[in-house]
Amino acid sequence: MDRKERLKKQLDFVLEIDKVKNIYRQTYLADGNRKENDAEHSWHLALMAVLLSEYSNEPVDLSRVVPMVLAHDLVEIDAGDTYAYDAAGAATKEERETKAADRIYGLLPEDQGKWLRELWDEFEACETPEAKFAHVLDNCQPLFLNDASDGRSWTEHGVKKSQIYKRNRRTGEGSREIWEYMQELIDKHIRLGHVIDDGR
Amino acid sequence: MDRKERLKKQLDFVLEIDKVKNIYRQTYLADGNRKENDAEHSWHLALMAVLLSEYSNEPVDLSRVVPMVLAHDLVEIDAGDTYAYDAAGAATKEERETKAADRIYGLLPEDQGKWLRELWDEFEACETPEAKFAHVLDNCQPLFLNDASDGRSWTEHGVKKSQIYKRNRRTGEGSREIWEYMQELIDKHIRLGHVIDDGR
Repeated sequence: MDRKERLKKQLDFVLEIDKVKNIYRQTYLADGNRKENDAEHSWHLALMAVLLSEYSNEPVDLSRVVPMVLAHDLVEIDAGDTYAYDAAGAATKEERETKAADRIYGLLPEDQGKWLRELWDEFEACETPEAKFAHVLDNCQPLFLNDASDGRSWTEHGVKKSQIYKRNRRTGEGSREIWEYMQELIDKHIRLGHVIDDGR
Repeated sequence: MDRKERLKKQLDFVLEIDKVKNIYRQTYLADGNRKENDAEHSWHLALMAVLLSEYSNEPVDLSRVVPMVLAHDLVEIDAGDTYAYDAAGAATKEERETKAADRIYGLLPEDQGKWLRELWDEFEACETPEAKFAHVLDNCQPLFLNDASDGRSWTEHGVKKSQIYKRNRRTGEGSREIWEYMQELIDKHIRLGHVIDDGR
């Protein structure tokens, strides 16, 4: 493949991923006015990765964390966003997302497609320090936005304490300090009645 | 400052920058349905930085390019977006943006605020390989979106060839190959009547 052909493939990918700007999540922006999309979410995570890596339990290589969080939601172009507390969606999530990853990362030149796909697989497996820290970011960012928007998304979905704790059962593995801070926020929103206290 | 106080400052910054999700640019998304905001634009640039750095004329350190593009538009929280071809806005842009940078980067703990502010100053000065490459991305990404959306933004603003060339007068310094590709796209849109051919 000559360089121009390679550039063309890369730019086809660049245009394809523009679609994540139209994939909306359940989280509201901090001002509560509208929901956030995947591109905005991923941008936020990338800057947070750079600024908050000192709170990772283990040292992380940002040259892997940052592309990991920038690209972690690209599969939703085909698979759609599965809300964190949607049990039915969760059942088919893996299959839908794997198929999506094959197609989307397959648009890139082979070396780059393989590299980014492996980063996504690593994120999903959540075993390396980088993947664990990326998951901390992916879980704390919507919580911070929920806090800022008076728990709007939690209230709308009738979210229970046990659901948040289940989703975050491994967050402390990535960052004890951020997880501690998150728990204080969860407690606050239980007191405010935005999160249902089901005893867990 | 203890660690919790430090984390609190960092999270105040994280919430403050959520506002760029509401700063809309003049460029339409690839599907032409709505305009793009700064967070989406910056996300796109960061992934492009990672994927396209091989086209930079000079080797670049991605650990500086990526945070640079992720944060390059934060000043618009206070200063607003100045359209690329708005001459009146351009006259006051620097002053407005410098004041904004003082406030916004000042929210962070001093070490991080200084680091990110220096990256922004470096971007603005456009002298280092990293800053030149970041500018290539900042200039080619809207062009790719304009191309995908049938030149909608150019047509709406009656953009002239000379304006695009003036804005891109230094793009070739960052990447000859990407600038060459961009020129082909500009020529195509002149032929299609989306960009006014004023001879330049």
